[in-house]
Amino acid sequence: TMSPRYLQSNSSSHTRPFSAIAELLDNAVDPDVSARTVFIDVEEVKNKSCLTFTDDGCGMTPHKLHRMLSFGFTDKVIKKSQCPIGVFGNGFKSGSMRLGKDALVFTKNGGTLTVGLLSQTYLECVQAQAVIVPIVPFNQQNKKMIITEDSLPSLEAILNYSIFNSENDLLSQFDAIPGKKGTRVLIWNIRRNKDGKSELDFDTDQYDILVSDFGTEEKETGGVTCELPETEYSLRAFCGILYMKPRMKIFLRQKKVTTQMIAKSLAHVGYDLYKPTFTNKQVKITFGFSCKNNNQFGMMMYHNNRLIKSFEKVGCQVK
Amino acid sequence: TMSPRYLQSNSSSHTRPFSAIAELLDNAVDPDVSARTVFIDVEEVKNKSCLTFTDDGCGMTPHKLHRMLSFGFTDKVIKKSQCPIGVFGNGFKSGSMRLGKDALVFTKNGGTLTVGLLSQTYLECVQAQAVIVPIVPFNQQNKKMIITEDSLPSLEAILNYSIFNSENDLLSQFDAIPGKKGTRVLIWNIRRNKDGKSELDFDTDQYDILVSDFGTEEKETGGVTCELPETEYSLRAFCGILYMKPRMKIFLRQKKVTTQMIAKSLAHVGYDLYKPTFTNKQVKITFGFSCKNNNQFGMMMYHNNRLIKSFEKVGCQVK
Repeated sequence: TMSPRYLQSNSSSHTRPFSAIAELLDNAVDPDVSARTVFIDVEEVKNKSCLTFTDDGCGMTPHKLHRMLSFGFTDKVIKKSQCPIGVFGNGFKSGSMRLGKDALVFTKNGGTLTVGLLSQTYLECVQAQAVIVPIVPFNQQNKKMIITEDSLPSLEAILNYSIFNSENDLLSQFDAIPGKKGTRVLIWNIRRNKDGKSELDFDTDQYDILVSDFGTEEKETGGVTCELPETEYSLRAFCGILYMKPRMKIFLRQKKVTTQMIAKSLAHVGYDLYKPTFTNKQVKITFGFSCKNNNQFGMMMYHNNRLIKSFEKVGCQVK
Repeated sequence: TMSPRYLQSNSSSHTRPFSAIAELLDNAVDPDVSARTVFIDVEEVKNKSCLTFTDDGCGMTPHKLHRMLSFGFTDKVIKKSQCPIGVFGNGFKSGSMRLGKDALVFTKNGGTLTVGLLSQTYLECVQAQAVIVPIVPFNQQNKKMIITEDSLPSLEAILNYSIFNSENDLLSQFDAIPGKKGTRVLIWNIRRNKDGKSELDFDTDQYDILVSDFGTEEKETGGVTCELPETEYSLRAFCGILYMKPRMKIFLRQKKVTTQMIAKSLAHVGYDLYKPTFTNKQVKITFGFSCKNNNQFGMMMYHNNRLIKSFEKVGCQVK
């Protein structure tokens, strides 16, 4: 059995919210979905701020959505020599439940519209002893619900416990996915800090999402806030360096993210190959001087094209 | 649903085997079990090396064992002002499945003997689509199986797919728990490194368990292996510093672990209080000079009496 509490604990691997957002972007770019564009937005629904991720990838069947909302299943395979970033089949659950208490997934694959609810609020309200995930499929042509063993009670659960209380409101979310295929994730009850303030700041910059109160502690202790890399607190800056070679356009609040090709932005570039003893793989290292800010330095580590550590001080950099 | 593969991915948070062993020790020392002694041993069963953890805590009912083998349930509460170390109800699963592919738990609480099987080999053999955990209760007095809906097929599964193929062999494991109450965890198919060698070295020191090939890479690149803290590769040394104030005796391969009270072993001691801005708690810091080895220094961080980071270089130490 899996306790509803586990959704929370499972997400605790993300100490920071941007790494949780990265999981959702990885799902869109990975070869089983192959989205060319993803839109990150902030939308008000019934006075609640919702974080949305909408992609134009190939969408999912009800079965595939069920696997995505389960634990440890993955359909990701290497395609056209592109290695998937996700391997554990846990990114959506750990990422979405790190960002907020509740999430809806809307997906269409050309034939079926499917909606699924992963919601801690719902599970608390019905005092569920184990995680239950209501999933409802609709015919994409006539938008009629496809009758399965669970579809009617699942629809009732979604209409009673999500932020969409009518079937029309719910179905209209599929129209927010441009084209015939794609997936839209909507997260609400965004995590709050201990002081009750939303962890993500949607207000300071209308074209960005910032980490609230970032660096407050350093400021108060007379620290060096101004030297903290922008990628640590600005989602726009973070998305700009997330993939070494971008395969997908990212639109953040209607404005395209400009990719920063770090390895190509350096001066006096040098190269080396690192050959670890524990594997036959070779790791290419690019050295160089940042032209932007000489206070911000360190190692940027990419695995399968995805940033996994940034501004890591190594060797002489620690001195 | 939870895929059997998830057992493996869920354990990947432990990059090193000793942190997985620590989870099993935490379960014994935490206030819901309150073991006074735990025995860590290496035993041969049918030519397989098994790692065993046997404690004299209060044991579990079948229901409690079922919760321990599920995800996200925990019965841990603060008792006599002792805060439990575990909070997520995930330590046993992530810890045991990090160390080996298969585990049996034997527990007795004075009235019932209960055995449970968490086994990746079993799930592979029966081609399980979801994680199944066979659990069988026996009457502690007459050692007869207690008939429940699942007990007979569960017993069959355990005898067919674990290393104990007869009911007598299985029941004899309860005798390895001294006294009327306690729990014994037995792990086999110990994880192997990529070269096929067991990750844990049981042979070099008969009174210790070492990390195999530890520091090989540093040695080969002409590094500083001799300066690596013993606690990184010797389980005996690691157990010696795992708890700030020991509440439980640890016997490793029949020999008692000597606790190293780090804060009391320093010369020229000084104290300070760290008051983070994000919480009202105060963190006591003890400064001092190590009398043992002046190449091994850093911050030892304890949370709820348990070591969570060791030899972390901070401030001037990084220089």
